[in-house]
Amino acid sequence: MDKVLTLDIRGPIVERALQIEKELRNGDKKSFGEVVKCNIGDCHATGQKCITFVRQVTALATFPHLLENKSFPEDTKSRAKDLLAACSGSSVGSYSHSLGLEVVRRDVSKYIHQRDGIESNWENIFLACGATEAVKMLLEMISTTGRDSERAGVMIPIPQYPLYSATNSEYNNFQINYYLDESDNWSLSADELKRALTSVKGQCIPKAIVIINPGNPTGQVLPQKCMEDIIKFAVDNRLMLIADEVYQQNVYQPDKYPWASFKKVLSNMGPSYSGKLELASLMSCSKGYMGECGYRGGYCELLNFDPAVQAQLYKALSARLCPPLMGQVALDAIVNPPRPGEPSYSLFVKERDDVLSALKDKADITYSALNSMPNMSCNPVQGAMYAFPRIHLPPKAIQEAKRRGEAPDFFYCLQLLEEKGICVVPGSGFGQQEGTYHFRTTILPSIEKMKYVMKQIEEFHISFMKKYS
Amino acid sequence: MDKVLTLDIRGPIVERALQIEKELRNGDKKSFGEVVKCNIGDCHATGQKCITFVRQVTALATFPHLLENKSFPEDTKSRAKDLLAACSGSSVGSYSHSLGLEVVRRDVSKYIHQRDGIESNWENIFLACGATEAVKMLLEMISTTGRDSERAGVMIPIPQYPLYSATNSEYNNFQINYYLDESDNWSLSADELKRALTSVKGQCIPKAIVIINPGNPTGQVLPQKCMEDIIKFAVDNRLMLIADEVYQQNVYQPDKYPWASFKKVLSNMGPSYSGKLELASLMSCSKGYMGECGYRGGYCELLNFDPAVQAQLYKALSARLCPPLMGQVALDAIVNPPRPGEPSYSLFVKERDDVLSALKDKADITYSALNSMPNMSCNPVQGAMYAFPRIHLPPKAIQEAKRRGEAPDFFYCLQLLEEKGICVVPGSGFGQQEGTYHFRTTILPSIEKMKYVMKQIEEFHISFMKKYS
Repeated sequence: MDKVLTLDIRGPIVERALQIEKELRNGDKKSFGEVVKCNIGDCHATGQKCITFVRQVTALATFPHLLENKSFPEDTKSRAKDLLAACSGSSVGSYSHSLGLEVVRRDVSKYIHQRDGIESNWENIFLACGATEAVKMLLEMISTTGRDSERAGVMIPIPQYPLYSATNSEYNNFQINYYLDESDNWSLSADELKRALTSVKGQCIPKAIVIINPGNPTGQVLPQKCMEDIIKFAVDNRLMLIADEVYQQNVYQPDKYPWASFKKVLSNMGPSYSGKLELASLMSCSKGYMGECGYRGGYCELLNFDPAVQAQLYKALSARLCPPLMGQVALDAIVNPPRPGEPSYSLFVKERDDVLSALKDKADITYSALNSMPNMSCNPVQGAMYAFPRIHLPPKAIQEAKRRGEAPDFFYCLQLLEEKGICVVPGSGFGQQEGTYHFRTTILPSIEKMKYVMKQIEEFHISFMKKYS
Repeated sequence: MDKVLTLDIRGPIVERALQIEKELRNGDKKSFGEVVKCNIGDCHATGQKCITFVRQVTALATFPHLLENKSFPEDTKSRAKDLLAACSGSSVGSYSHSLGLEVVRRDVSKYIHQRDGIESNWENIFLACGATEAVKMLLEMISTTGRDSERAGVMIPIPQYPLYSATNSEYNNFQINYYLDESDNWSLSADELKRALTSVKGQCIPKAIVIINPGNPTGQVLPQKCMEDIIKFAVDNRLMLIADEVYQQNVYQPDKYPWASFKKVLSNMGPSYSGKLELASLMSCSKGYMGECGYRGGYCELLNFDPAVQAQLYKALSARLCPPLMGQVALDAIVNPPRPGEPSYSLFVKERDDVLSALKDKADITYSALNSMPNMSCNPVQGAMYAFPRIHLPPKAIQEAKRRGEAPDFFYCLQLLEEKGICVVPGSGFGQQEGTYHFRTTILPSIEKMKYVMKQIEEFHISFMKKYS
């Protein structure tokens, strides 16, 4: 491990936020009464309630004595029984197959089939310790012990979720940046992909392209045409496509900006493409309406992988024995939710829709509030859980940041935290076009809290702009 | 990933075992009615019952509505409440700190303090997705992107738990084999360590030594003198000591073969050693009396690490966000078990002691049975969950194996499986002195089942020896 990158979503600004919380607890007087953390997509941490069905199934699998308890609905019991029957010794304390329990992998493939209307082979699905582990395994698999021009090249979006840069660095992969177009709603063009690839010619062996859709930190939902261009580009250049689709259930204007999986778009492109793209699609328990980050459940579906490569990946996964069983159980409850007519159905639908409709409202509130501020602009939050506004910083603010040895947007975010108790992450933690400055805020606090956050940001922003204009 | 090793504990013999199980289900006639899997330390899979206290605490943390339920004892509720209070948003669905919940890390340090009588600093403890993840992080941390003589050298025992060889291969570390002395109860000598290190001079940069105590696959508990020699050797050669102590609660003759942690032995050696050894000690939920493999809970305590190195390791851990929360909760229930006077205490003690006393009986049964067979010898199972007997194979058997293109002990184990339905792992999967042959069997099936396993092995062994003598 020659080089380690940290994730700014947990970086120095977050450390300072934790310190300020301690100061507040110790009775220090500030102009605000609490720190609101908008730095990380951690739904339950900001008050989102868990989905009862998911927790009932996981509790029953944990402690099967509860199967006698009459307060648990029958459908939660039948799910738990099926899962326990699949566990060795009927216990979630045993190891599963290193790719996950077969029953969960089959339920995942049914979920994908229902989502896309396309067959899914459960043997092409492996379960992981969050989608994060799957990303790490994929990026490690394509890495080489080569140096310089023999290194594996991985195209990643800028701005990106920093797991990708950190993992590429960890495995000595060559990071190839392609830029999302802020002026076109964080979309991307085939021209930009070509430019990026051409610019690194001879410096590495390009092997994969990462697409995050819906976008993190950028919140866009990619149009179908754009996805087709990406697929053509990947096929033409023999790149594996790593589709980070963990926000697939966080789509707020499906009529206007519909989301489709890369698998579905690929399948509609006909045989000249559909059999040719090596596609790895990622999904997680941690996002969507359930937000079960702590369970570390996730899956990856592989399509068109060379059987030898897939076998090698599966072999590598066996060294860590198996993904956490409780994460597998939670994932199963999510991909196999209550059906109409089952006792848990109405409560499940209500809880799910309440979360998603509040997220939609917060996406709107955030978008409107940020765009109403002078020298601030923000694309619509079409999906995921984040807004990524651009701050048009005056030269004096940039000078002051340089004087302090800080990136200008880091300086802005740190001042926002110190003065208003709002914790967001500077754009420099995700990457951005040189000379532009952003921050990422989640839209996860409650509607009331989100309005408060926007008010605090606005007050700070106006006074900051005044100070440095 | 240029090179991937698989773990033989899940290798081709296990694949064949699963196939035979299917054949039996399909009505195929065999001379045995079931396959008994003695290939993996998966306690619950072989019928061991879970510890009620652990599952009650985890169920309450999963579904806090159960805190109202009168059938859960008060101490399980107070544990769950403390854990939930430490979770962001009081939910196990939120991320924890990347090193784990502070309350769990503090409880781990109290456990260590009580175990050794030596202070433990909770900030030197990080939680992981099983001890496996901690091993991987440590071996990755010391790795370099160098080639040939610049590679990091890691000393590992032969026989070893194959996670170590697989992980060294994964991270391009140079594997330095030292041999355990079968004739002296799988002990090891300073001379052998020196020989091993000298033999690779100039081929790598030696950085660490791995010790597994109690031993896997070998079942020994290291004498204190031997541990002192190891510590001296590690300090003299500036090697980090990775102490795999996951079987610390599986010690079957504590009067005769007492177990002590490396930390404790080190501390007794006085200041010329105690401040000088970089020590990483591993522990897990998966073994001991609880056997909660599926939860993927584990911890690592670091001692005397260079603060910059420790900071780098902690930074690297942040990229995977956090260890599974349910694994953290289960680990907490294990390091902070019921105390005398608490309502769960008597049941907990009974369940724990039942498991450990059965394991002790099975260790004896296995040792006696194996040693009673001609051309078989086995050291006492002093700890852990395995016996690693030596099979004295006749030349004809070795020739027949070669003719088939199989390692001789692989051939033996495969025939044992085919003829008797007993699944054990060949010694070649763990490494062994050239020209010697072994297998590893767990001692996990029930006492009755273990007697049956030994009878099946004996029948097979006698007929096999006759056939090839």
